[in-house]
Amino acid sequence: MDTVDRWLDPSDLVDSYVHRCPARELLAVLADKWVLLVLGVLRASDGPVRFNALRRRLDGITQKMLTQTLRTLEREGLVHRAVYPTVPPRVEYSLTELGRDLGRITHAMGMWIVAHQEQLSTARVEFDEREAQLPQPV
Amino acid sequence: MDTVDRWLDPSDLVDSYVHRCPARELLAVLADKWVLLVLGVLRASDGPVRFNALRRRLDGITQKMLTQTLRTLEREGLVHRAVYPTVPPRVEYSLTELGRDLGRITHAMGMWIVAHQEQLSTARVEFDEREAQLPQPV
Repeated sequence: MDTVDRWLDPSDLVDSYVHRCPARELLAVLADKWVLLVLGVLRASDGPVRFNALRRRLDGITQKMLTQTLRTLEREGLVHRAVYPTVPPRVEYSLTELGRDLGRITHAMGMWIVAHQEQLSTARVEFDEREAQLPQPV
Repeated sequence: MDTVDRWLDPSDLVDSYVHRCPARELLAVLADKWVLLVLGVLRASDGPVRFNALRRRLDGITQKMLTQTLRTLEREGLVHRAVYPTVPPRVEYSLTELGRDLGRITHAMGMWIVAHQEQLSTARVEFDEREAQLPQPV
């Protein structure tokens, strides 16, 4: 079965809408712009990527935020961090098998956004126009 | 082609890693725990859902946060808000066609998390154990 469609079967759904459900805590970790973008860059690269290359690719990210995002992804077992004992030490990041699997779904989400951005931005303009026509508080 | 797999073709990828790319701004809006959970509840329901029913389903959400999340989703054209002139007015929320399409992908993400939560939590425990063994600053 397709990697993505495998997870569309709700038969073994636990209740992620309940507070403190472990899956919901994970969702809170993964539902983050930088987490999704770092997954995207690592997924698109042919091999391991060095910190500075990641930073250059992710326009607008601070060093601190990238460090924190990579630690989060490493902690969840989605990113592998390899340190080579050169001088200075070389540190490279790549997706684990688990990260590659999740990356396929988050990539689909990114592609969906790109493909629908005009529809979404039309909706936004229309919403703001409707709001502007509402009676204003006096 | 499958709804999800349609967006796996990178041929029309714009550069979402660049700051102020509209798709990246959208990603920042959608990469939010409550946005994803509200999409999930609306997707799972048979028909339109009232505000209080949504609130009951989403354990831990505040009234303010749910209001804000629904406005965000309505503004992006993903949620339809219907007001019926009863006393008191009845307000119901449902996914638009666009929201239903995106919901399919975010649901796949949720299912993936549920299916892999043990692997992810094992990784987390191992990471924390490795960190604890590192030499501490004196």
